[in-house]
Amino acid sequence: MKYCSTCGDHVEQRIPQGDNRYRYVCVNCETIHYQNPRIVAGTVPVMDDQVLLCRRAIEPRYGFWTLPAGFMENSETTLEAAARETLEEALATVTMGDLYTVIHVPHIDQVHMFYRATLTSEDFGAGEESLETRLFALSDIPWDELSFPTVRRTLELFLEDHSKGRYTVHVEDIRYQMRK
Amino acid sequence: MKYCSTCGDHVEQRIPQGDNRYRYVCVNCETIHYQNPRIVAGTVPVMDDQVLLCRRAIEPRYGFWTLPAGFMENSETTLEAAARETLEEALATVTMGDLYTVIHVPHIDQVHMFYRATLTSEDFGAGEESLETRLFALSDIPWDELSFPTVRRTLELFLEDHSKGRYTVHVEDIRYQMRK
Repeated sequence: MKYCSTCGDHVEQRIPQGDNRYRYVCVNCETIHYQNPRIVAGTVPVMDDQVLLCRRAIEPRYGFWTLPAGFMENSETTLEAAARETLEEALATVTMGDLYTVIHVPHIDQVHMFYRATLTSEDFGAGEESLETRLFALSDIPWDELSFPTVRRTLELFLEDHSKGRYTVHVEDIRYQMRK
Repeated sequence: MKYCSTCGDHVEQRIPQGDNRYRYVCVNCETIHYQNPRIVAGTVPVMDDQVLLCRRAIEPRYGFWTLPAGFMENSETTLEAAARETLEEALATVTMGDLYTVIHVPHIDQVHMFYRATLTSEDFGAGEESLETRLFALSDIPWDELSFPTVRRTLELFLEDHSKGRYTVHVEDIRYQMRK
């Protein structure tokens, strides 16, 4: 950030009065431009003990498999965002279930929230951001080709809870980006 | 938003290619300036069946009682944000418990997340944003003087669950601002 979005003059980094963090502050109109974490919302879409994954048609992680998920937009809830991303990326409609994982990724200022969901039909496909979409048996998850640590962790927890027959909400952190 | 924070030129609202929503886009450098919901994180700080509330020293809702909560900052988790706000507003240290409520407030682009927490001592006070801080018996919550709908709803759920002796995660929406 170099310029003030309110008046167009320059911003500088300083700690505003009554605050204890550096913020971008306009040198002219003194508007404080706060920056806050973003929510990524998605689903674990299930049908008959199979989970629907999408192979990414965009960077980062082009060609890797992901759960349908994306940035939450203004004016929606995390459930609505998760269902919308599932429709956009997998052309799939789901019945939304319970909140499942809340995974903080503080080094990239994100909170990932996944909901359990049930596919309403086998009518799904590849949205614009997907190369293909496929149902995987739980014993057949492509672990070596998953896109992101939060997707991997959510699927790991899902398999553990599935084997126990009981799903609970999991709140965790991923502190460093894991790459192959 | 009137000006591009990257180059200082004007922005206009249009739907970028491959998108389906209006965004602020720079007429010069074409940077897309996304806007996303913010997370408010807080605690339900408890000691011996009493809950700690803070009377607000700032607008909005000056003089009304609130649970300690505030905007999540970059580089932290929602647990860290909730504990930090509890320290800042109530000068109280807590042992963090489970995630308790996730309440969407889509008309103001916020998601409020409250954790259950236990005060580690009776050593608390009024932070800069509080007029006073006080422990209330659950039968003595100042319902007519609460600050925000998400605080009221979280306390309502807490009382219900406390009477049942079992606390679960609650994911809800508040669609319209309720005012006295």
